[in-house]
Amino acid sequence: MKTVYFDNAATTSIRDNVIDKMSEVMKSNFGNPSSTHSYGRQSKSLIELSRKRIASHFNVSAAEIVFTSGGTEADNLVLKSAVRDLGVTEIITSKIEHHAILHAIDQLKKEYDITVKYLDLNSDGDIDLSQLELLLQTDTKQLVTLMHINNEIGNILDLKKVAELCKANNALFHSDTVQSVGHYKLDLQEIPIDYLAASAHKFHGPKGVGFTFLRKNSGLRATIFGGEQERGLRAGTESIHNIVGMDEALTISYSNLETERNHIKTLKSYFIEQLQSVFPNVSFNGQSGDLEKSTYTLVSVCLPISAEKANMLHFQLDLKGIACSKGSACQSGSSQNSHVLTEILNLDDLQKPSVRFSFSCFNTKDEVDYVIGILKEFVIS
Amino acid sequence: MKTVYFDNAATTSIRDNVIDKMSEVMKSNFGNPSSTHSYGRQSKSLIELSRKRIASHFNVSAAEIVFTSGGTEADNLVLKSAVRDLGVTEIITSKIEHHAILHAIDQLKKEYDITVKYLDLNSDGDIDLSQLELLLQTDTKQLVTLMHINNEIGNILDLKKVAELCKANNALFHSDTVQSVGHYKLDLQEIPIDYLAASAHKFHGPKGVGFTFLRKNSGLRATIFGGEQERGLRAGTESIHNIVGMDEALTISYSNLETERNHIKTLKSYFIEQLQSVFPNVSFNGQSGDLEKSTYTLVSVCLPISAEKANMLHFQLDLKGIACSKGSACQSGSSQNSHVLTEILNLDDLQKPSVRFSFSCFNTKDEVDYVIGILKEFVIS
Repeated sequence: MKTVYFDNAATTSIRDNVIDKMSEVMKSNFGNPSSTHSYGRQSKSLIELSRKRIASHFNVSAAEIVFTSGGTEADNLVLKSAVRDLGVTEIITSKIEHHAILHAIDQLKKEYDITVKYLDLNSDGDIDLSQLELLLQTDTKQLVTLMHINNEIGNILDLKKVAELCKANNALFHSDTVQSVGHYKLDLQEIPIDYLAASAHKFHGPKGVGFTFLRKNSGLRATIFGGEQERGLRAGTESIHNIVGMDEALTISYSNLETERNHIKTLKSYFIEQLQSVFPNVSFNGQSGDLEKSTYTLVSVCLPISAEKANMLHFQLDLKGIACSKGSACQSGSSQNSHVLTEILNLDDLQKPSVRFSFSCFNTKDEVDYVIGILKEFVIS
Repeated sequence: MKTVYFDNAATTSIRDNVIDKMSEVMKSNFGNPSSTHSYGRQSKSLIELSRKRIASHFNVSAAEIVFTSGGTEADNLVLKSAVRDLGVTEIITSKIEHHAILHAIDQLKKEYDITVKYLDLNSDGDIDLSQLELLLQTDTKQLVTLMHINNEIGNILDLKKVAELCKANNALFHSDTVQSVGHYKLDLQEIPIDYLAASAHKFHGPKGVGFTFLRKNSGLRATIFGGEQERGLRAGTESIHNIVGMDEALTISYSNLETERNHIKTLKSYFIEQLQSVFPNVSFNGQSGDLEKSTYTLVSVCLPISAEKANMLHFQLDLKGIACSKGSACQSGSSQNSHVLTEILNLDDLQKPSVRFSFSCFNTKDEVDYVIGILKEFVIS
């Protein structure tokens, strides 16, 4: 059966080169990086080489990169330690962050005496920087956590502006950059951010590995305790093949960045045009219909179809081999409404089915045509 | 150069079948298990199949197995949640546990009002069950955490007896079984233990994945927050290839258990004999010289050589391609004395060099001869 994978914001396929590299590492470098003998040193040097290469993409030093089991752990590490070890008593965020942020904060509220402030959002899902600025006028020790690119509606935060605002007001700034790392270049000498979190499986790397950037002298401490791995910041024997795979995937992504971005952006643009011609009343959630204000990798579509048909839509798309998402795939297949769309859509639009289509360099114009054809057929039939 | 890998307690090589399986999964099953479309369902079903197979080895239900990024995270999860969510106020353990236990407990002491009691150890590194029984005579909510097999000296705890003692006294019992899972069969219907932690890379599986067994209705909760993966107990997109690889490795290990155990036990026995003939004054740390009272997978040797030579020993072994360990490899190449040996050896023996040699099914009698030859040469020269 023909299948079309338009769910690249949930996860991406792993590049063949990455798989080959990982297999090679698993075959040849099994030593424990903490061992001092030759097997251990070989593994250690692989990890450190990967750390250096990853750091170089962000123009930071290798010592500022800490490997984790993924984006979720990275987000949790930063939030937890900022509260526990740095004395943060107020967190500023928004209600459309990833659950790795929102649920970690909920837990911190239970364990610590902290205040959480959620920034207002307009109907496009954008925050108001002047409100943020106002909230930063305080002596309270604050941490701001706002994602760079929203995983459901693709809105892009002006990372540099927010980082500068935080810095000017002595607030710490963390960003979940899971949807942007590998797709956008970030020069962290230019952007005075304190921490960020990334995940390899969003840029054609393996699942189960990610990293966090912690700016020098961050003062953050471990949340998982044991051995002295990651210079004491994250105990547990390193997943060497995953780390090397992540490095390889990131390096390829950034090498091919312009070509792949152009390809994907063209697909998205074409997809939007086609949708508009098939559904004259189609609308796009958040900024996702705007090629400049949203990431080139996804579009979230609100389809103007009857409630009756809406119920069948995802079933039908799946039946035709089309993989896309109702909301975020990280919500464990629940059929609940997306917490992001619930925050920003009006009641009327919330009744209509929303679908997130997200693209990769491996998608084609033919696939767009196929999906548009299926959607057309479904609406007319 | 000839190399001999006798450091299998630090980590093991990955079986070729496991690597092949992992590569296949990475190529064919990249969907996010939380996605409801076919790609996601395929991944989900792979994970659940692995969970079922892993559970079956322990005679427990699949729902009692929670995947983690490794043994350290698994240990941390149990200890942290038992204190935070179950109201444990006293932990009973010993000073020769793995750092994943000891350092996690140190952190809990900082964050919670708990008491920690360390069981006495005799010079062989064994605890006294009657002391444990005495300490359990209390109304305080207690958690006992004792490893099944010590990673440095190979001592085997009577898991069943301790579990029964804990159960009879309403104490919770956790065991770090990182050194035994894959090498010993554990029927958890027979052993009334509450929790255990395991790590794939100790039984020829991949690094960066492990699991914890949490007995039904454990009441434990997550320590990493975000998506609803692992039924809410561990957020973060699952490392599918690592999980499938772990399952494959464990299944092979248990299928070959008897043959491989016999092979390894014969090697250990031969190694001990040879050591005794070369160094008449050799001694073995803990119970590791006793084939019945210690794991068949390792031996910890205290060599009766001059301080001068001792300094050169590890360098020399490494130079000759022999990988073994001073203590636990999880101590990040530090040259500190092992915390385990420090606890049990007398001052005199602590001055002598101790070496842990740990074996796998891939080692041979020739390798033993080679290592014995090098040791002999080193001592005589």
